[in-house]
Amino acid sequence: MHPQLSVSTRGPVLVIGSGLLGASIGLGLGAHGVPVTLRDSSPAALALARDLGAGAIATAADAEPTLVVVAAPPDVTAGLVAEALCAHPGAVVTDVASVKAVVLEALLATPGLDLNRYVGSHPMAGRERSGAAAASADLFAGRPWVLTEHEGADPAAVLAVRSLAVDLGASPVEMGTQEHDRAVALVSHLPQLMASLAAARLVDAPEAALALAGQGLRDVTRIAASDPRLWSAILTGNAEAVLDALRGVRDDLDGLLDALDRAAHDGPLALGAIAGISAVISAGNDGAARIPGKHGGARKRYVEVTVLVPDQPGELGRLFTEIGEIGVNIEDFQMEHSPKQRVGLAIVSVAPGSVRTLETALEERGWRVVSQ
Amino acid sequence: MHPQLSVSTRGPVLVIGSGLLGASIGLGLGAHGVPVTLRDSSPAALALARDLGAGAIATAADAEPTLVVVAAPPDVTAGLVAEALCAHPGAVVTDVASVKAVVLEALLATPGLDLNRYVGSHPMAGRERSGAAAASADLFAGRPWVLTEHEGADPAAVLAVRSLAVDLGASPVEMGTQEHDRAVALVSHLPQLMASLAAARLVDAPEAALALAGQGLRDVTRIAASDPRLWSAILTGNAEAVLDALRGVRDDLDGLLDALDRAAHDGPLALGAIAGISAVISAGNDGAARIPGKHGGARKRYVEVTVLVPDQPGELGRLFTEIGEIGVNIEDFQMEHSPKQRVGLAIVSVAPGSVRTLETALEERGWRVVSQ
Repeated sequence: MHPQLSVSTRGPVLVIGSGLLGASIGLGLGAHGVPVTLRDSSPAALALARDLGAGAIATAADAEPTLVVVAAPPDVTAGLVAEALCAHPGAVVTDVASVKAVVLEALLATPGLDLNRYVGSHPMAGRERSGAAAASADLFAGRPWVLTEHEGADPAAVLAVRSLAVDLGASPVEMGTQEHDRAVALVSHLPQLMASLAAARLVDAPEAALALAGQGLRDVTRIAASDPRLWSAILTGNAEAVLDALRGVRDDLDGLLDALDRAAHDGPLALGAIAGISAVISAGNDGAARIPGKHGGARKRYVEVTVLVPDQPGELGRLFTEIGEIGVNIEDFQMEHSPKQRVGLAIVSVAPGSVRTLETALEERGWRVVSQ
Repeated sequence: MHPQLSVSTRGPVLVIGSGLLGASIGLGLGAHGVPVTLRDSSPAALALARDLGAGAIATAADAEPTLVVVAAPPDVTAGLVAEALCAHPGAVVTDVASVKAVVLEALLATPGLDLNRYVGSHPMAGRERSGAAAASADLFAGRPWVLTEHEGADPAAVLAVRSLAVDLGASPVEMGTQEHDRAVALVSHLPQLMASLAAARLVDAPEAALALAGQGLRDVTRIAASDPRLWSAILTGNAEAVLDALRGVRDDLDGLLDALDRAAHDGPLALGAIAGISAVISAGNDGAARIPGKHGGARKRYVEVTVLVPDQPGELGRLFTEIGEIGVNIEDFQMEHSPKQRVGLAIVSVAPGSVRTLETALEERGWRVVSQ
């Protein structure tokens, strides 16, 4: 007996690669009762994904999958897709690699593949933490999922991959491989490099400077914690589009260096200094304003309540215990604090309907709630 | 009759500049019953700050202030400080501009000023929105407030500015003006420019590319919405330190361009391509890990223990209570968790010597500890 399926994907689904994306796909499908099996070259990664509920470990005795999802770094993706097409002649095969042209080119150059069963795809979802431990059934909810259908793709294969995206709560978007790669160069690969370049300047920064860090630096560098092995594969796999974007950055950067050089030599009001800097900041204003949904969307499903927490052992525990007693569920949590500070800021995300209850009850119990 | 004062600052305090910082100072002092008056070159900005409760509009009939706070853009700060020192011969004068050396240099170059009553300062607090409308009495709570005491400063003046910081909930930090300026170049000015440079690439991006934007791009570019006028003044006022940092970025960028060029010509496995990219991403990892608080500092000195927490009210509180009973001190904490997930991951940072004790005791109590 299977549970009632509320989704189109029937399975069995074989997920190859049990990292963040693979495990999240397994969790999402499993939540709808779709049977999922997992493969990974790392036995430890595989066991973690299984323990978290992402699926069963694949064995030779498994029923043939109807869908295979390759969720591996881009430099090994084409090889795994080719293998899956051969090993599972009845299955539709997709991959979720974040570069699409090199994967398709490699597959087109491989003789003897039944490529009409393959449709490349790329869910636009991720986190700064990698691995199954960061996985979530809802990772794809409300996110675009790009399908890069090639000319020879079977309509039934396209439908199967589109259904996978929809079943996981994502919105399918169709693009060519080149169009996709140029788009992600701007909205994903370039931001990654800018975060890494900014964070790299901190390697030799004095401790006293780092102690002044605030939310601006944290936001700009959040994704700088990303995996070098994965990102080297992504960026070499999209070299031309990333080069185009980065050359634009270098031109702007040269303008900034010139303006700052003038100010350093002739003072803050040096000819051209203000104009040169202002041009880049203004262009940044214009570019940032084009990002859709900046103040809406999924991000605002919860409301943040900020509480001052004295920097003493047990205070954070007491806060959480009391929030539990108040009966409000914590949806997310962040701690903001610096060394030697007397207080930290606990930022508790809760459902909008619980904000008033929580704020009032915490204040009654003597907590200092920071009004936003 | 004044309300009972729980703070050291007695006032009256005159705040010159009624934007985000000035209005927040007025709100914070006013909440403790300290009398605050406001001045601003913009009557509309002044009226807004008054209406929000940041203080009364200053008049010629006011009692002499004991403390004047100049909260204006850096390029007009020195002039306003000089004016305040002359107009209020009994008052301590501070400013909160985000560059400190140019302000002090300009004041030292102005003849006839009683500079022992002046102490420069810089609260490390801000928001992406500017103006009094974004002000908050708690803006400075838990944040560092840098004091850049110069040689001739009167100890009583230093104490008055230190008290202001403490009264507003901030943590005073002492630094020289040059040390401060080099520090903020790395942790504030460089991130601003990297955000602007990344966002500037979006000006001509296709709509379809922008529709793929995710949280990474939003975080990297959040502060790109900043005011060009204010930032031009800040950056020209700190040109040498920002130049140093930006030249480091250009060197790294040139390495990236070379690596990508190799990959574009000779394919993803081109000689030196992976190494060149990996070097920058890895340096970014190292730099990001040094940021204290949420992302970093704690991670180096402490070890993370990850615990699965059922998504039910009270469970997180029970976890913290039991960690307290086990007798292990929590140094930092993060929650990894998405809506609708069955479990969240509580990432508890503890001293390396406590890891084994904590893991064993939690498992005995039925918690699921995820091995890293």
